[in-house]
Amino acid sequence: MSELREKVAELLAPIEADMQRMRAVIAAELESDSPAVRDMTTHVSCFQGKQLRAALVLMVGEATGRRTEEHPEVAAIIEMIHLATLVHDDVLDGAEVRRRVACVNERWDNETAILLGDFLYARAFGLSTRLTSRLPSQLLAATTGRLCAGEIEQAALRYSFDLPQATYEGVASAKTGALYAAACELGARYRLPRAFGPEDAIGREMRAYGEELGLAFQIIDDCLDLTGDPAAVGKSVGTDVEDGKVTLPVLYTYSKSNSSQQARIRDVYTLSSELLGVATEGGARAKLLREEIDLEAGLAYARGRAEELVDRAVGRLGTLPESSARQTLEMVAAFVLGRTW
Amino acid sequence: MSELREKVAELLAPIEADMQRMRAVIAAELESDSPAVRDMTTHVSCFQGKQLRAALVLMVGEATGRRTEEHPEVAAIIEMIHLATLVHDDVLDGAEVRRRVACVNERWDNETAILLGDFLYARAFGLSTRLTSRLPSQLLAATTGRLCAGEIEQAALRYSFDLPQATYEGVASAKTGALYAAACELGARYRLPRAFGPEDAIGREMRAYGEELGLAFQIIDDCLDLTGDPAAVGKSVGTDVEDGKVTLPVLYTYSKSNSSQQARIRDVYTLSSELLGVATEGGARAKLLREEIDLEAGLAYARGRAEELVDRAVGRLGTLPESSARQTLEMVAAFVLGRTW
Repeated sequence: MSELREKVAELLAPIEADMQRMRAVIAAELESDSPAVRDMTTHVSCFQGKQLRAALVLMVGEATGRRTEEHPEVAAIIEMIHLATLVHDDVLDGAEVRRRVACVNERWDNETAILLGDFLYARAFGLSTRLTSRLPSQLLAATTGRLCAGEIEQAALRYSFDLPQATYEGVASAKTGALYAAACELGARYRLPRAFGPEDAIGREMRAYGEELGLAFQIIDDCLDLTGDPAAVGKSVGTDVEDGKVTLPVLYTYSKSNSSQQARIRDVYTLSSELLGVATEGGARAKLLREEIDLEAGLAYARGRAEELVDRAVGRLGTLPESSARQTLEMVAAFVLGRTW
Repeated sequence: MSELREKVAELLAPIEADMQRMRAVIAAELESDSPAVRDMTTHVSCFQGKQLRAALVLMVGEATGRRTEEHPEVAAIIEMIHLATLVHDDVLDGAEVRRRVACVNERWDNETAILLGDFLYARAFGLSTRLTSRLPSQLLAATTGRLCAGEIEQAALRYSFDLPQATYEGVASAKTGALYAAACELGARYRLPRAFGPEDAIGREMRAYGEELGLAFQIIDDCLDLTGDPAAVGKSVGTDVEDGKVTLPVLYTYSKSNSSQQARIRDVYTLSSELLGVATEGGARAKLLREEIDLEAGLAYARGRAEELVDRAVGRLGTLPESSARQTLEMVAAFVLGRTW
């Protein structure tokens, strides 16, 4: 995997200058006269990860030959919205470890998380309202609405073991695909002083590429949560079982299980930790599930579905001219499948 | 007071049709294909109160002779942002009762509050991006940023008994004045297809009117939290003392107290409820404070400051032509001072 990671780092080199500009924009947006606010925004660095969504804005801009001088700002907005969702997720999930956040100390409580997330949303929208074109504001408002709706749906569908795959994918698309789709669509449609219209075919294809990539990413994420090693993944794992989220590998396994296995799966999700005889901390239920239920076929099925989506996404890149940026977008798709983090 | 309330209702009659349109816009924005989302947005009605901020957009539009057909939508956006802050405040404060919300049942948890708040923000921004002028998007992004910064500052300044009045007012202005200011500024500056520029004198005066009104409102709110009857106020009272918020009446009282009284004030705020011998539910500390410390001079001082602000705000209305709308804005200011709710 580290070979693939190196390869991607190499391919990302051409957009590194713009990535630096994107980071500088975020840093400037987090500035404040208030020491209390600055104190809080220092926590943001604990959530900064791969910045893949920002990179997609820039790479799609390159690959479509439509990169503008405002692309780094658009990328910064996408990344800030992603950060806001991560920060609020920390309250939603009660996640214990996110991206090895030893730096988020005991002062990190629900209040901090809500205010910091709201502040990030406000600054991201504020930045979008100062751009030449209104497209980012419009697309990002719609996207965050869809993101929230996905989270709300997901909460309502907890402990649903008979969920149709399409419903699971609808939620996963809204939660994760939406922002990938917006990143790629903006990368392609943003131009100055106006944006390419909604009828623009390249914009539509890039949006679909992002949507499929994001859904694949989420499916792999769900697999890693079930099987992953927290040290490698860099955030809590096993939280989905703890939180009652029945993800694709479990849905598939459940649908292929006999009724006693199904009952046991439900028990592992729902019985109290005392009754199950497991620890209360995150990960114990997922571990028990792995020990008692053969998840291999379910995991293989989910990975197969992610591969199918990635293939379809990569196919869309065929509409773009050959370029190293296009090649990078292909590699990114492969990276999503191969990631262990 | 009920006389004043009736009088205001009468004066509001001319904008009632626009208020209805504003409510219809909000209802449409809360619509969703997802039953889970609809389920959640039904909670919003529990937070709907006086809708004073929305009314200000419309009344200022009338009073300045600048009302447009999009004013009800602008008013809806302001109101939705206010609702989002109330919903998130519910997590921040751990408020027990807000506007007699028996209708927010046991399914109301932190997760619901965060998602519903985020959803409201997203829909409010989304609506603003579809208006003819970009001014509402720009102003509201800046306003929500300032709102969050105010909340963050406030959290950092808990248990600060030597806070300068200017610092207290800075936080209160950011928390409450900012949205009133934005409502009045938008009411005055919004026109189609473009807005009046930032140099527009009427826009600036109306903004200042809103800012002063909002700060006065917050000061009265802080007095009511200390003295109010929860049945009359319609939300939890005494929460400021519980949460360590040292508000103007207490700051003044503290500054005029001798050192043993000061120590007792600090004790009432900070000692465990066991040591104080009071109940753990909200309101017990404020009650103890009222019993042990003479707060009258502090409350009178705070009310005096609110009156001063309202006088200044009303003075600004002198720049507008005589009209019943202008008279309503004067009455609203009086209502802010006289309110018991």
